[in-house]
Amino acid sequence: MKTCIVTGITTSGTPHLGNYAGAIRPAIQASLHSDAESFFFLADYHALIKCWNPTRLYRSRLEIAATWLAAGLDVDRVVFYRQSDISEILELCWILTCSTAKGLMNRAHAYKALVSQNVSKGLDADDGVSMGLFSYPVLMAADILMFKANKVPVGKDQIQHLEMARDIAQKFNHLYNVNFFVLPEAFVVDNVATLPGLDGRKMSKSYNNTIPLFEGGTKNLRSSIMRIVTDSSKSGDPKNAEDSHLYILFRAFATEEESTLYKSSLNAGMSWGEAKNILYEKIESELLPMRERYNKLISQPDLIENILQAGSQKARCFSKRVIKDIRDIVGLRSLNIDICSSKKQFINNKNSNFDNNENKDPRFLCYRDDKGYFKFRLISSSGKDILKSRGSFSNASNVGSLIKDIKIFLQKIKSEKMNEFEYSPILDSYDLDCDIQELKRVIE
Amino acid sequence: MKTCIVTGITTSGTPHLGNYAGAIRPAIQASLHSDAESFFFLADYHALIKCWNPTRLYRSRLEIAATWLAAGLDVDRVVFYRQSDISEILELCWILTCSTAKGLMNRAHAYKALVSQNVSKGLDADDGVSMGLFSYPVLMAADILMFKANKVPVGKDQIQHLEMARDIAQKFNHLYNVNFFVLPEAFVVDNVATLPGLDGRKMSKSYNNTIPLFEGGTKNLRSSIMRIVTDSSKSGDPKNAEDSHLYILFRAFATEEESTLYKSSLNAGMSWGEAKNILYEKIESELLPMRERYNKLISQPDLIENILQAGSQKARCFSKRVIKDIRDIVGLRSLNIDICSSKKQFINNKNSNFDNNENKDPRFLCYRDDKGYFKFRLISSSGKDILKSRGSFSNASNVGSLIKDIKIFLQKIKSEKMNEFEYSPILDSYDLDCDIQELKRVIE
Repeated sequence: MKTCIVTGITTSGTPHLGNYAGAIRPAIQASLHSDAESFFFLADYHALIKCWNPTRLYRSRLEIAATWLAAGLDVDRVVFYRQSDISEILELCWILTCSTAKGLMNRAHAYKALVSQNVSKGLDADDGVSMGLFSYPVLMAADILMFKANKVPVGKDQIQHLEMARDIAQKFNHLYNVNFFVLPEAFVVDNVATLPGLDGRKMSKSYNNTIPLFEGGTKNLRSSIMRIVTDSSKSGDPKNAEDSHLYILFRAFATEEESTLYKSSLNAGMSWGEAKNILYEKIESELLPMRERYNKLISQPDLIENILQAGSQKARCFSKRVIKDIRDIVGLRSLNIDICSSKKQFINNKNSNFDNNENKDPRFLCYRDDKGYFKFRLISSSGKDILKSRGSFSNASNVGSLIKDIKIFLQKIKSEKMNEFEYSPILDSYDLDCDIQELKRVIE
Repeated sequence: MKTCIVTGITTSGTPHLGNYAGAIRPAIQASLHSDAESFFFLADYHALIKCWNPTRLYRSRLEIAATWLAAGLDVDRVVFYRQSDISEILELCWILTCSTAKGLMNRAHAYKALVSQNVSKGLDADDGVSMGLFSYPVLMAADILMFKANKVPVGKDQIQHLEMARDIAQKFNHLYNVNFFVLPEAFVVDNVATLPGLDGRKMSKSYNNTIPLFEGGTKNLRSSIMRIVTDSSKSGDPKNAEDSHLYILFRAFATEEESTLYKSSLNAGMSWGEAKNILYEKIESELLPMRERYNKLISQPDLIENILQAGSQKARCFSKRVIKDIRDIVGLRSLNIDICSSKKQFINNKNSNFDNNENKDPRFLCYRDDKGYFKFRLISSSGKDILKSRGSFSNASNVGSLIKDIKIFLQKIKSEKMNEFEYSPILDSYDLDCDIQELKRVIE
């Protein structure tokens, strides 16, 4: 089975050069070289926790989607969606909220830090803490567990939240006596390129020292680079490249050889002005084609919306099925699906038309319902349903030819190693309920 | 404008006679005699907080829906739906979670009582407290605010939760500088008939002293009544009716005259056995026709499911529109709806075809978009959009005849005093966005 990786993207600001080198570029590169199933989502429900400015939130989602697309995120390889388009996530979030102990949230580092800050200032312990901030790890767990992620790339500050997602999953599995949720593993991105900002401190919006990524175009990029703080050594003075912010920035965009040359030029006395020029040229050569794509995208919100909608459709192929299973588990199923009685009906019926003699391979079973109509299912050797017809048929031979078609299609899935997202909608169009995990087990 | 009343029904047990007389019967009677817009919902997301037994949850939803329907809830007069079918409620719940202070939840009586219980037992303050239990008032606020309820019938123990819903609404309105949410008012049901149970204490599942409503049929009702505790006075002994549980129960099902007669018979020495017989006959005469309906319903989960689905559709006519507005307010709107630019476009355009001369009545405005296609809207005298075409038209005369149709339909709404649930789907079929509040203001 393929590894599944879920990556959340916060949407409460405009990305700068540090975000690009530290997060966007490595994630996109990883997705291009991995054969994992990758899910990337704009975490706009999370953004609501901190951003109560609708225009900024709207704008940020647009800019960040355009940035990732311009930077090369391949929406044919990955599932790229917006959290707020997947209503199943909030449903799962509430269900997990009901089974999660409050004590777990009390122990979150981020929350505890806020409380101790408040207490040391003599304020109420929960001063300025919203319920969103407090409950955030449950929503994060829902984001991850919904897609049965095996791996989640996180920064060090997020490791505890991932452990909480595991705790929440285990608690649910235990409470309902199921083995449903996959326990995700943190994939800690250690060697994140942290870029220095204009003043040499870590580039961060909160320090107001960022170099823009696309904002303000070439001109703004150039003028920002020219404002990077250097020491007062003059042209001709040998410079210590290792200590220079310019060198660290350069290295993040250049090959090994280029970096060595840059370093030795600085050591040999290249002026700061010259060094800034070279740095600018280097970064600009990488950003220019992206910026062109970005400007094109940002002027077409419709196009981005369509891309996100298509991604959400892919994601919902998955999430709708998962939430249906979860509803079954917790007892929120439709009143007309009484699982026990439907199982009984199945066991009681002997009018099976299809290769029922072999008890090893998955086999199709055709049977009649209460009213005498035909239904069918594909069951695994262990008796589990893989596929199940939703509708009923008055004519057995219609069922027979439909099963024939489905068998051919299943063969096609197998021989062409089709992706779940390619075959799910087709199976759906046959009006079948499908247990994808079982199907995968049979096919792989 | 009509008053809107929202009533939640918990779904974590089987209703008994006390629930019927204290909650179900008065609520249904009120809904029959009121001309308010009444919403009744099965609060199954709330039930998840306390009930982790899927079979019980499933069964309870079925039984409770069947009970209310059998007891005479008229689904043509009221909107009767299941909370878990309205995904917009959890979306609103999360949005409110983000704007609600944790401190507010800390102050909930129910939560504080649990904490002090834990502390007095030497346990961790949050021992056994789930996040669901802690966050419950936010979900309750979402249930109420979603439907812009004016009044919410609550027991005394729920008054604080309703005040919290008001606080949450005000905080949101303030944070986003809007006057969006209606502040609901508690409608405290004071004279609730609290029935005594078999042992004379308040009838309650937790005392294990309940008289069943439909469970076990006539036989069970009769044998339960025969088990009601009485004193040891014999037939012929005068009895103090006012102190007798039998009299209190009788009064809850009888007319004034019948009660007076019952009382004087007891005072005159009627035996307890005789009194129980009369009580049984009285209650049975009310329950019998309901029990028959109930048994019929409970054997048809499909039918109940269909009724609930139809109710959910009505409710979602409302909730979908409200959540769309809320998404606009907080900045989660589609990327292709840039509200500012659409407003600008509107203001800049002078090619209005319809009675633009009068600046008092609501009027239709037709204008062209960027690409020269026609669009139209109906604006109120204060310049607010009432209706807005979603699509674009290449031909102005098509727009003209469509507007004519809509004008006729609006007249029909007005003259026939059509209900929102009747006209909303039709306006929707015209492919119009509609601000129902504005429309109501104009029509009423």
